[in-house]
Amino acid sequence: MTNKRKIAVVITARPSYSRVKTVLEAIKNHPNLELQLIIAASALLDRYGSAINYIEKDGFQISAKVFNVLEGENLTAAAKTTGIGILELSTVFDNLKPDVVVTVADRFETMATAIAASYMNIPLAHIQGGEVTGNIDEKVRHSITKLADYHFVASESAKERVIKLGENPEFVFNTGCPSIDLAKQVKENSHSLPFNPYEKYGGVGAKPNLDNGYLVVMQHPVTNEYQDSRKHIEATLQAVYEINKPTLWFWPNVDAGADGTSTGIRAYRETHQLPNVHFFKNMEGKDFLHLLNHANCLIGNSSVGIRECAYLGVPVVNIGSRQNRRDRGDNVVDTIYEVEAIKKAIFERLDTNSKLVSDVYGGGDAGEQIANLLENLPLQFHKTIMY
Amino acid sequence: MTNKRKIAVVITARPSYSRVKTVLEAIKNHPNLELQLIIAASALLDRYGSAINYIEKDGFQISAKVFNVLEGENLTAAAKTTGIGILELSTVFDNLKPDVVVTVADRFETMATAIAASYMNIPLAHIQGGEVTGNIDEKVRHSITKLADYHFVASESAKERVIKLGENPEFVFNTGCPSIDLAKQVKENSHSLPFNPYEKYGGVGAKPNLDNGYLVVMQHPVTNEYQDSRKHIEATLQAVYEINKPTLWFWPNVDAGADGTSTGIRAYRETHQLPNVHFFKNMEGKDFLHLLNHANCLIGNSSVGIRECAYLGVPVVNIGSRQNRRDRGDNVVDTIYEVEAIKKAIFERLDTNSKLVSDVYGGGDAGEQIANLLENLPLQFHKTIMY
Amino acid sequence: MTNKRKIAVVITARPSYSRVKTVLEAIKNHPNLELQLIIAASALLDRYGSAINYIEKDGFQISAKVFNVLEGENLTAAAKTTGIGILELSTVFDNLKPDVVVTVADRFETMATAIAASYMNIPLAHIQGGEVTGNIDEKVRHSITKLADYHFVASESAKERVIKLGENPEFVFNTGCPSIDLAKQVKENSHSLPFNPYEKYGGVGAKPNLDNGYLVVMQHPVTNEYQDSRKHIEATLQAVYEINKPTLWFWPNVDAGADGTSTGIRAYRETHQLPNVHFFKNMEGKDFLHLLNHANCLIGNSSVGIRECAYLGVPVVNIGSRQNRRDRGDNVVDTIYEVEAIKKAIFERLDTNSKLVSDVYGGGDAGEQIANLLENLPLQFHKTIMY
Amino acid sequence: MTNKRKIAVVITARPSYSRVKTVLEAIKNHPNLELQLIIAASALLDRYGSAINYIEKDGFQISAKVFNVLEGENLTAAAKTTGIGILELSTVFDNLKPDVVVTVADRFETMATAIAASYMNIPLAHIQGGEVTGNIDEKVRHSITKLADYHFVASESAKERVIKLGENPEFVFNTGCPSIDLAKQVKENSHSLPFNPYEKYGGVGAKPNLDNGYLVVMQHPVTNEYQDSRKHIEATLQAVYEINKPTLWFWPNVDAGADGTSTGIRAYRETHQLPNVHFFKNMEGKDFLHLLNHANCLIGNSSVGIRECAYLGVPVVNIGSRQNRRDRGDNVVDTIYEVEAIKKAIFERLDTNSKLVSDVYGGGDAGEQIANLLENLPLQFHKTIMY
Repeated sequence: MTNKRKIAVVITARPSYSRVKTVLEAIKNHPNLELQLIIAASALLDRYGSAINYIEKDGFQISAKVFNVLEGENLTAAAKTTGIGILELSTVFDNLKPDVVVTVADRFETMATAIAASYMNIPLAHIQGGEVTGNIDEKVRHSITKLADYHFVASESAKERVIKLGENPEFVFNTGCPSIDLAKQVKENSHSLPFNPYEKYGGVGAKPNLDNGYLVVMQHPVTNEYQDSRKHIEATLQAVYEINKPTLWFWPNVDAGADGTSTGIRAYRETHQLPNVHFFKNMEGKDFLHLLNHANCLIGNSSVGIRECAYLGVPVVNIGSRQNRRDRGDNVVDTIYEVEAIKKAIFERLDTNSKLVSDVYGGGDAGEQIANLLENLPLQFHKTIMY
Repeated sequence: MTNKRKIAVVITARPSYSRVKTVLEAIKNHPNLELQLIIAASALLDRYGSAINYIEKDGFQISAKVFNVLEGENLTAAAKTTGIGILELSTVFDNLKPDVVVTVADRFETMATAIAASYMNIPLAHIQGGEVTGNIDEKVRHSITKLADYHFVASESAKERVIKLGENPEFVFNTGCPSIDLAKQVKENSHSLPFNPYEKYGGVGAKPNLDNGYLVVMQHPVTNEYQDSRKHIEATLQAVYEINKPTLWFWPNVDAGADGTSTGIRAYRETHQLPNVHFFKNMEGKDFLHLLNHANCLIGNSSVGIRECAYLGVPVVNIGSRQNRRDRGDNVVDTIYEVEAIKKAIFERLDTNSKLVSDVYGGGDAGEQIANLLENLPLQFHKTIMY
Repeated sequence: MTNKRKIAVVITARPSYSRVKTVLEAIKNHPNLELQLIIAASALLDRYGSAINYIEKDGFQISAKVFNVLEGENLTAAAKTTGIGILELSTVFDNLKPDVVVTVADRFETMATAIAASYMNIPLAHIQGGEVTGNIDEKVRHSITKLADYHFVASESAKERVIKLGENPEFVFNTGCPSIDLAKQVKENSHSLPFNPYEKYGGVGAKPNLDNGYLVVMQHPVTNEYQDSRKHIEATLQAVYEINKPTLWFWPNVDAGADGTSTGIRAYRETHQLPNVHFFKNMEGKDFLHLLNHANCLIGNSSVGIRECAYLGVPVVNIGSRQNRRDRGDNVVDTIYEVEAIKKAIFERLDTNSKLVSDVYGGGDAGEQIANLLENLPLQFHKTIMY
Repeated sequence: MTNKRKIAVVITARPSYSRVKTVLEAIKNHPNLELQLIIAASALLDRYGSAINYIEKDGFQISAKVFNVLEGENLTAAAKTTGIGILELSTVFDNLKPDVVVTVADRFETMATAIAASYMNIPLAHIQGGEVTGNIDEKVRHSITKLADYHFVASESAKERVIKLGENPEFVFNTGCPSIDLAKQVKENSHSLPFNPYEKYGGVGAKPNLDNGYLVVMQHPVTNEYQDSRKHIEATLQAVYEINKPTLWFWPNVDAGADGTSTGIRAYRETHQLPNVHFFKNMEGKDFLHLLNHANCLIGNSSVGIRECAYLGVPVVNIGSRQNRRDRGDNVVDTIYEVEAIKKAIFERLDTNSKLVSDVYGGGDAGEQIANLLENLPLQFHKTIMY
């Protein structure tokens, strides 16, 4: 028998996995912690990139799988996916009996983890609370903060915000963002692109030469603007089409509007020749960072542009409202869902010569910090607001 | 075709119904609002007092019923009940297409209403946010605040707290507690007890004479102290047994520990003669207020003691942590789960002569205020934290 | 690593456990089988007798628990309980990866086991198919037969019926009923009642002297006659009250009408003195058989009267339609839901002197037979109707 | 107030709708019946052809929508989809209070309809029971027969089989298959193809000239052979590629293996030029029949080949086990999942000159017959096996 603390981490999507990979490693390697890894929702599904394959390849053992994504063309499906998640995760927690449950960030279905744990009196740790974006994610994020017992936040402003929300400052820790841990490793080991993306990841479309620089595109649908997601993606497609530089395009992850975005991309490809664009479904986190590290510009609305690219100093064109009010470094320029505006922003960024690096999201040791906190924090699930 | 605003209110328990009855009436009678009343969870179940019967008797039409209480001996059931609630309520909302959804207070399963509505981009109004109690309800309450778009709170301190939580002050309203509306009606019309409770409500046990005063007991299990709920109820039972005055005892409503409390009461009755105690399963809200208005003392941990009894000026012995940190008037004395302490507190209260009345929870027009706000508030589900 | 066959058995209720206990023992003790015991539904719940406590006391290890009983006052809850059961059991099977799943008899929620297993291409064994009763159980029972791959039936007429249903005779086995295995052990070791039921099982009510014989009552609600369940139980209560002999009464198990029956018993006790009746919530299977073996008569509608009592030769008054068309021995007399008819039937049975023993439900080695079949049957889930 | 009988029909997939469209029309137009149309599962989803759009365009009013398709890469998702279906449909039935529920055929999720209705004591009618196919559908189909109260079967051999299954012959009716009703209308009005499929239905790929005949392909994954579905579809793709005649290819509907089939088609298209093949996602039933009526050959495993094509006399190459043991006319030749075998079978069929017409599946008035039976059958949910 062991008396290691059992730490259950629930991963529900490809990007969440990338973000906390170093936390998982630090827990796994910690002498006094036992990792219980639970894979759920779109992280299990082929059409969202099968994060689970990468997770297993990275040497993690899976304690439980939870299929809970309900298909649908409207927001009802997001609610139902969350409901099924609670049903299933409560059984999983009942069997695994973790000492602490960790939930990551603010995707809608992470609420299922938070509710199951807090209702079952299991101490709940939340990674990446306290940030501001102005979309549905923000409701979810702050709502989880009010359920969580420990807060591992990614920046000073996030820490202040969580404390303003009435949380006990004793349990709010600015560890930096764990995604920066990976960026640090990459930056220290990336003199040139260490792999051929076409060979390693397949994908479809043209195979432009990447030697003289390239663009990367990653644009997710924005939940609150569900019906516009197709129109939004078409503006970006058209801008990239007109600029006609070597481009690597990544499929979006699942959301209420996912089908609008995916359909938009598919339809556009059938009516337009895109001789400089290659499409990928997924890429191992580290390889993606190598790719970004050598890119001329990242386009879209991914939080990677705000976070890892700050540390790496990669220029970013951030489109639309998805990253509103997040802390950002000087590497980011914001624009709107219009072809000309997007083109103009890209050209501006391509003209920027110097790398503008920032440590606003931490210094690359978040995983270690979080594991050490999980070892030592008092186990508790009872709290009250501080005012 | 009408263009009345459709207001869906979800009632999940007997006490929640009593609390918002005047809101329901004000919405129903409002010329520009249409009430969509949804009855769910324990409000549908016989062993928790079948609130639905009272609701129908009061002349409300039910738009949908949602059975979602999962049976169980542990906290897992509370989580699962919430998960099933989301699954079902999202279908209900999809069919009824309300303009606003209203959720009441802080019972665990009210989170299902909040999630289904906010994930489906339906503006969410929350009644009775911002209060402090120090138990699991508090996590739920503040978490719902962060999902809600409009806040109808019951006291000034609650209003301040919701604003501190980062909500837009423009959408935070101190309407007072709707339960005070009923208390006001009762107080104005209650010269003597206007009905015979034994005849009207049956129940079991002795039928003590009530002419020279009586005690009322209402003690619910406390979720975070699940395994202690039986021990807690036994202390109160023993104190009431020893005091041996005319007593009217009400069954608790459903919670994770409900079976401990119920079992404790049943077992005690089988081993002790209680010649002065009568047990009721349920009572129409107004009648219960009449009963309180003429009682010498209310004992237990019901929020009625904190709220309505403040307005009515009825002495209250509040046991344990359930009402911790709620605003209270001078009518309340607090005590712990011990026989002697409870007895001492009761005797003290019985010696108090003057009625100590307080308007800390409002002046009796909350229902009207809320309906008028629901008519006029801008319909929106998009918000961001204020700091 | 082992290559024992993994046999998952799902137990959903107290009586199902008693019925297959010897099967569980034979699987557990078999050198080439590994038992995966899954406890679900009312078998987990205190108010239905907490079968799980007995199961653990009997030395079985539980592989998974599934809470899926939805509370409700109508038949909707039975459907929902089954739906939740499928959701949960499919996750359990996905994790445990059994080679064969075993489902028992015909309670409504056993359909969840059958659907989860057959939809997941896991070979399904069904115990006690092919019997006839004429109620909703019968729809469930034959429907499960059409999903099952192996059939372990309890009598020759059941075997013939399963084959008539188009099943391959190669996979239909008359093993006898496993409940008879226990009856055999009891009969061979029961010269006098080996325990004091009041001391060992508590319960409530009078404690009549049992030395000169006693009646046993066990009457379940009948699903199709939901609204009549209270009236039915009252007839039996009145007959037992008037006969006024030492009586041991057992609470019913969960069903759509359960609350009618329970409420009926509680209400009757509050209005009538029952100086010769004691009520039990539950009893270990073996002790219950000892009790029956020394009883003068069993009254109600339990299948124990039809099965074990046939082997033991105990007189039985069988009330109503619940056991319609089941094979029965000469020990049973049938009657209707009327006070006088029940009284008359009881008096008749009490006058019967000789024990009328029958082996219609097997010779007491069903557990061994089933375990040996599970070891050797070809693993398959693909079948087609034989005509 | 009306006293029309309320008939709830649950449609869960595109092909099921086509199959029973004339039944829906006959119920809708019947003076003594009220149609309650419930659309669920893949019938609601864009990527399976959005049957709901066609249903609404055909002038039917939808009483309720039920989103219950759980995403997943394995058979667990099929089980879970069924569980969620029961949860949701039982609420729907509770609200709509139908007099009879009608379930169609044998897709896995139709079991949800059957269980919800029969557990709630609502008389259940089953269309298309009694047929034999030898796959998982067959378990489902016969299992539903044992839950159903009325049986509307499509052929004489199906009728005999349902009666052999122990059903009361009084409630087993050979109405013929309702899909033949549509085929009859088409046949009587189809001198030439009355629309341009490319213009009317879009789709992707080449647009071969159809004037000199064409092939139609429709191949669904076979549940029991989940992992082989990609290999199976590749054999057909290769055969069609080599034959290189004008071909209209239809996407499969959802099943456990759906992603294998879809992925197979997508991947093949990216590596092969298919200058004679056009792909459609969906087509209105009547138009599809017109298309078949003028086709030289139907290839795949659709039941349309067995049924409507019998009546129309269209040559069919039926691949694999999906239609095993179904009654068929002389128009069908069977083959296996091998390129050469498929090619050979197609060439044979193309050489057949005469139309071989059969009325094995009825004469075209099934819809009318079923509506009239639904008007007059005694309402009952209580049955017992006939032997």
